Amino acid sequence: MPITIAVDCMGGDHGPSVTVPAVVEFLGRDPDCSAILVGKEPDIRAHLRGEGGVASRLRVHAASEVVEMHDSVAIAMRNKKDSSMRVAVDLVKAGTANAALSAGNTGALMAVSRFVLKTLPGIDRPAIATILPTVDGHCYVLDLGANVDCTAEHLCQFGIMGTLLMSSLEHRERPRVGLLNIGEEDIKGSDVVKQAAELLKESGLNYCGNVEGDQIWRGAADVVVCDGFVGNVLLKSSEGLAQMIANGLKEEFSRNLLTKLSALLALPVIRAFKRRFDHRAYNGASLLGLKGIVFKSHGSADAYAFRCALERAAEAARESLPEKIAARMARLHPGNGIAVAA
Amino acid sequence: MPITIAVDCMGGDHGPSVTVPAVVEFLGRDPDCSAILVGKEPDIRAHLRGEGGVASRLRVHAASEVVEMHDSVAIAMRNKKDSSMRVAVDLVKAGTANAALSAGNTGALMAVSRFVLKTLPGIDRPAIATILPTVDGHCYVLDLGANVDCTAEHLCQFGIMGTLLMSSLEHRERPRVGLLNIGEEDIKGSDVVKQAAELLKESGLNYCGNVEGDQIWRGAADVVVCDGFVGNVLLKSSEGLAQMIANGLKEEFSRNLLTKLSALLALPVIRAFKRRFDHRAYNGASLLGLKGIVFKSHGSADAYAFRCALERAAEAARESLPEKIAARMARLHPGNGIAVAA
Repeated sequence: MPITIAVDCMGGDHGPSVTVPAVVEFLGRDPDCSAILVGKEPDIRAHLRGEGGVASRLRVHAASEVVEMHDSVAIAMRNKKDSSMRVAVDLVKAGTANAALSAGNTGALMAVSRFVLKTLPGIDRPAIATILPTVDGHCYVLDLGANVDCTAEHLCQFGIMGTLLMSSLEHRERPRVGLLNIGEEDIKGSDVVKQAAELLKESGLNYCGNVEGDQIWRGAADVVVCDGFVGNVLLKSSEGLAQMIANGLKEEFSRNLLTKLSALLALPVIRAFKRRFDHRAYNGASLLGLKGIVFKSHGSADAYAFRCALERAAEAARESLPEKIAARMARLHPGNGIAVAA
Repeated sequence: MPITIAVDCMGGDHGPSVTVPAVVEFLGRDPDCSAILVGKEPDIRAHLRGEGGVASRLRVHAASEVVEMHDSVAIAMRNKKDSSMRVAVDLVKAGTANAALSAGNTGALMAVSRFVLKTLPGIDRPAIATILPTVDGHCYVLDLGANVDCTAEHLCQFGIMGTLLMSSLEHRERPRVGLLNIGEEDIKGSDVVKQAAELLKESGLNYCGNVEGDQIWRGAADVVVCDGFVGNVLLKSSEGLAQMIANGLKEEFSRNLLTKLSALLALPVIRAFKRRFDHRAYNGASLLGLKGIVFKSHGSADAYAFRCALERAAEAARESLPEKIAARMARLHPGNGIAVAA
């Protein structure tokens, strides 16, 4: 099935200098995909190089404005209706594209996507899901900040959406769903979390119980469910800690001539280690629960990381992820008169 | 001022084999302190060695039971009234000791301490505070799991207690207090967090605004305030991530003869790095807001880490931390008829 992705080329720290080459590389590897490069045409064209082989599957769609990282959600929504971000999502709504990808402001992207695409029937709140590395693989965590206050029903819906995200992207049946909590026992946690545990037990998902903060990294669950406040703190603090450790190692290795020499000798080890926990490979957070596919790239993504996000968005489109979520919700609440509308 | 610390010698992964030598070492370094070793007398005596110089400041207080790590709070409270943990806290209540230290079950220690010592006037909820390393020092974070649901008032009280903890232990005036949140802007976060920000602004504390997960490690605040659910996830996930990274490095360095050789050459670097982020130096979480001083050591603490916790408990006692907290609360709510009772 041919897939078209609308790419907000202006978002992120590096804009078209990263997004445009990443798209060209992506199209070269995936002959079934096309891309619509959305943004300021001269900026995009300035970075189009070597697209000869994929030119027929590539077109530029002009958008005159850019949502900046510091722009408020209100500005993005009201004052920048011709932003590259908004236009990319509009193209999904219009059916011109099967998915949108942006490295811009997360809050604005969620607000715009929700406003333009609307939420799927049966889903109360869209959520943001990302991938984190574990000792023996990786796991999906949601929500990462779209919903600061969640009910037990929301958490259960996150479990459903996370399950379908993982099984769509990785063709993996029945991933284990864990509930992030502060103890393994059922009696632990807030009332909302305890109620969510009950709902998850009855959900038909492969629910594996409570997961504590340290167990995430041990691969205790494939899908980890939490409210957006906790998920956001978890994600950002983990990024910050990993960065601090990496910088600390770098500093110690560059302290003097001797330590620099030992760094040189340890280079193969350091490279192997970096490959193992390369966060770029996990780039591409999914905005789940909308009538359309929207992915968010890390703002600091390089071309390799951005390409990984493009691949995820394409796979979600190939697997008709929103339709799968809608169908699952309809099975859960058959009386709702839910029609698949994606 | 002479300080006596009641030590639960039976708690933690290693029991008296770690706690008893740590106390002997601690007393050797601090001639103003005495210790009461609480627990099963034969077990304690079996690990008493080299205490000649400090024998006059050391005594054993028998307790027949041990709160195990898997014991429920109910078991610890109702069925184990002669546990080493309970007796150590009782000694503080009786005025025989100025502080108690245990490496046992955190939930049980908080419940026992709260039941025996009671909460300070003006404090709604006791909290657990610990120290985390930052790029250029360290910070105090609370609550770490005592309170899963917090009001804005609770969070503000945590800010007050954290400030007094840091200024007592480090003789540092007006540490910067930050509120853990999912964005820097005032409009971010849940309603509770937004209200807490207002209270903190008016509290007279050195409030420095919102702190995001990654900024904790950058030293954005000296005292970071959050509810116990978020704090527990933050602490455990950070411990788990650091462990995963350390293990990953170790594995890569021991992959073959060549990598092992490079590890040998990099040993001074690795040692310097370990010293820099040595979590053992930060051992000793404080149970704050009680009419008495109780510290919690990490269950896996070695003798060095346990001694660090003993030093913290002694300093809190020297500085009369509970009296300082009570006095500060009385100034905030002068109509409360609060009497210092610690």
